Amino acid sequence: MPKTKSLPRGVAVVGAGMSKFGAFPEKNSRDLFVEAFKEMTKSVDKGLDPSVVESLYIGNFSSDQFEHQAHIAPILTDAVGLLPRPAVRVEDACASGGAALRQGVMAIASGMYDVVLVGGAEKMTALNTAQVTEALAAAADVPFEISAGFTFPGFYAAMASAYMHRYGMKSEHLMNVAIKNHDNASHNPYAQFSVTIQKWMEGRIAAAIKKGKPAPTWFTIWDFLHDEAGNPTVAWPLRLFDCSPVTDGAAAVLLVAEERMREFTDHPIHIIGSGQASDSALHDRPELTAIPAAKIAANQAFEMAGVTAKDIRIAEVHDCFTIAEVIASEDIGFFAPGEGFKAAEDGVTARNGAKPINTSGGLKAKGHPVGASGVAQAVEVFKQMRGQAGERQVTGDVPVALTHNVGATGSTCVVHVYERRN
Amino acid sequence: MPKTKSLPRGVAVVGAGMSKFGAFPEKNSRDLFVEAFKEMTKSVDKGLDPSVVESLYIGNFSSDQFEHQAHIAPILTDAVGLLPRPAVRVEDACASGGAALRQGVMAIASGMYDVVLVGGAEKMTALNTAQVTEALAAAADVPFEISAGFTFPGFYAAMASAYMHRYGMKSEHLMNVAIKNHDNASHNPYAQFSVTIQKWMEGRIAAAIKKGKPAPTWFTIWDFLHDEAGNPTVAWPLRLFDCSPVTDGAAAVLLVAEERMREFTDHPIHIIGSGQASDSALHDRPELTAIPAAKIAANQAFEMAGVTAKDIRIAEVHDCFTIAEVIASEDIGFFAPGEGFKAAEDGVTARNGAKPINTSGGLKAKGHPVGASGVAQAVEVFKQMRGQAGERQVTGDVPVALTHNVGATGSTCVVHVYERRN
Repeated sequence: MPKTKSLPRGVAVVGAGMSKFGAFPEKNSRDLFVEAFKEMTKSVDKGLDPSVVESLYIGNFSSDQFEHQAHIAPILTDAVGLLPRPAVRVEDACASGGAALRQGVMAIASGMYDVVLVGGAEKMTALNTAQVTEALAAAADVPFEISAGFTFPGFYAAMASAYMHRYGMKSEHLMNVAIKNHDNASHNPYAQFSVTIQKWMEGRIAAAIKKGKPAPTWFTIWDFLHDEAGNPTVAWPLRLFDCSPVTDGAAAVLLVAEERMREFTDHPIHIIGSGQASDSALHDRPELTAIPAAKIAANQAFEMAGVTAKDIRIAEVHDCFTIAEVIASEDIGFFAPGEGFKAAEDGVTARNGAKPINTSGGLKAKGHPVGASGVAQAVEVFKQMRGQAGERQVTGDVPVALTHNVGATGSTCVVHVYERRN
Repeated sequence: MPKTKSLPRGVAVVGAGMSKFGAFPEKNSRDLFVEAFKEMTKSVDKGLDPSVVESLYIGNFSSDQFEHQAHIAPILTDAVGLLPRPAVRVEDACASGGAALRQGVMAIASGMYDVVLVGGAEKMTALNTAQVTEALAAAADVPFEISAGFTFPGFYAAMASAYMHRYGMKSEHLMNVAIKNHDNASHNPYAQFSVTIQKWMEGRIAAAIKKGKPAPTWFTIWDFLHDEAGNPTVAWPLRLFDCSPVTDGAAAVLLVAEERMREFTDHPIHIIGSGQASDSALHDRPELTAIPAAKIAANQAFEMAGVTAKDIRIAEVHDCFTIAEVIASEDIGFFAPGEGFKAAEDGVTARNGAKPINTSGGLKAKGHPVGASGVAQAVEVFKQMRGQAGERQVTGDVPVALTHNVGATGSTCVVHVYERRN
């Protein structure tokens, strides 16, 4: 294994913002990215003259398929008025945003640039669900997996049932993750889903009554989540509320070399660790209940940062499905294998718990515009670490935080560690 | 404009290889990349233990569209046995390979890695010509340009006719570029087209005679190239032989930090300059007879390298169409605006000329597997600079060389400068 090296030059996040996530028929990825760029600009405490930006990295999974628009990096650069800056699209499936962030870190560490904009964007809802499913399937090992009938809900369902078999988890344990993340999203004005699952259920009942139909007999969240009409099975044991939605959205963060960060803010967030690893596709892996690339990436990031999982106050992890959050929380080292689902049940990962996970609502409820998700994770930790997360702000300081971004079923994983020093 | 900075850490190319370029129904991008990786490995003078490779960058335009396979970086990493190394796909349309090379340079300069593999791959021929044309169109500004009926031959035809109008060039001047590049390719065993245009014509005549059909009345290359049957118009003034082909292919180069290059070879090629710039799409530019991003990228690379256009002994430039080579030769600064086509006519850019361009055969005749092309350019200069280009080796030393890789109509351009020191 190659040894992990520390960065020769420190990198700080001095601005971060995201578009509203959701389904926006009137917006394309340019519109979404402009929105994110404006939000990022507003967050730069001492103001941002955009002309100081020297280079751009754009995380995007497949505007090729979603919008029939490739070569999106210079197009988004043009949209935010940053021509002729060099612009590169980075793709690693659902980890595209995290991989773009990592390239931005390296671009500054290389000495080539002092100020780099990292963006992510995906416009997904122009396609219907079947088309989106097929487009996302391209992130798998297509000739071996998709030809055999797999889709992504199927992959994660296989991981969930293997986990249940191995560790005695019940499918309802996963609902704790969904309930928590929807609750967090209900306090995030940028999230796709603005209501808790309780409110969702009440809305469904009210709608039925309004239409003169018999009201569903759901009295609690648990009735609702166990009911095939309320929460239909997508791929057993995963139900609708175990799955992240199809989303339009964009995010942007501004990275600067540490020696220049005071030009932008007195409250920078330092990126002190970065790790990335690759793996075979799921069909070729010896086990399904962990993601080896996540362990490697997390260990690289921890080693570079000089911290351990214990030091992480909050984390945004890749919960494309509820089971993915459980597995992530174990891969990173927060909990022992087979213990992650209990932590969710016991409230340890809740906003007021000992190890809050996905305070933003996560991919699950904030939304998952694929190439933007890894960048939006950085937006959330930036806000939480600076005490600017509004209603969902965790209590106490957040000196160290982590983001964890997975591509496909773990063929790519990217982990970053962040530090606040003042 | 941001100032150009020199690299804090030197980077050398110590190995380079490519697959055979062509149309290979039996090969996918994995097969092609494995072929390129093996050729690269063979070129490493002191042998390569693949486990020393620490990270991969893959240039790929749209395996999403061509093979319905995204997330290709970890898949190709798996194919060459380099898991769990981090792997990133870089996309900037037809400049994806050059952009990947640049990321590899930065990854080493950042101190994160000492040994980086840069690859490029594209499998295009599974689609028919109409489908390829549509897939490539995604590299344009789709809502503004493709909706208006443009395709890439049309864009470059517009540039060619503007150039003809402005500088008095005739369409036959472009044929000099095609003749030269096919001649170069006829000496390149990896090229898609292994024959000169003269041989091509003779083959067409012989085939007609063999079939008992009346033989075409072509006596010279010029008869052939002016004839609609021999060389049909694609988009006036561009004819078939003005256009690069649809190609399957891959390429790979091994980059190492200078302090470790002697572990691999005593004949390294140093990358001493790297530049990249973005621009609006063609419809939004004030002029059509030059590519501004190419000028900016070349100037950045020259400034970093401390050389000028005069110092460049050979160049591989982005001749997706013959007119593109003419314009490139002016944008880089080899010739004044309006003089590039004369240089091709006068043999200045021939293999034995004062400023050889595209000794490999270029995209035009070596082939243009989009995401691989920028990496294959580096393969050619590596071979020429080390005196290993066989029949097409230029005479005399090649102390300094350049590669020039364009995305779309110039929304991206990436330029690198290489030096041989011993």
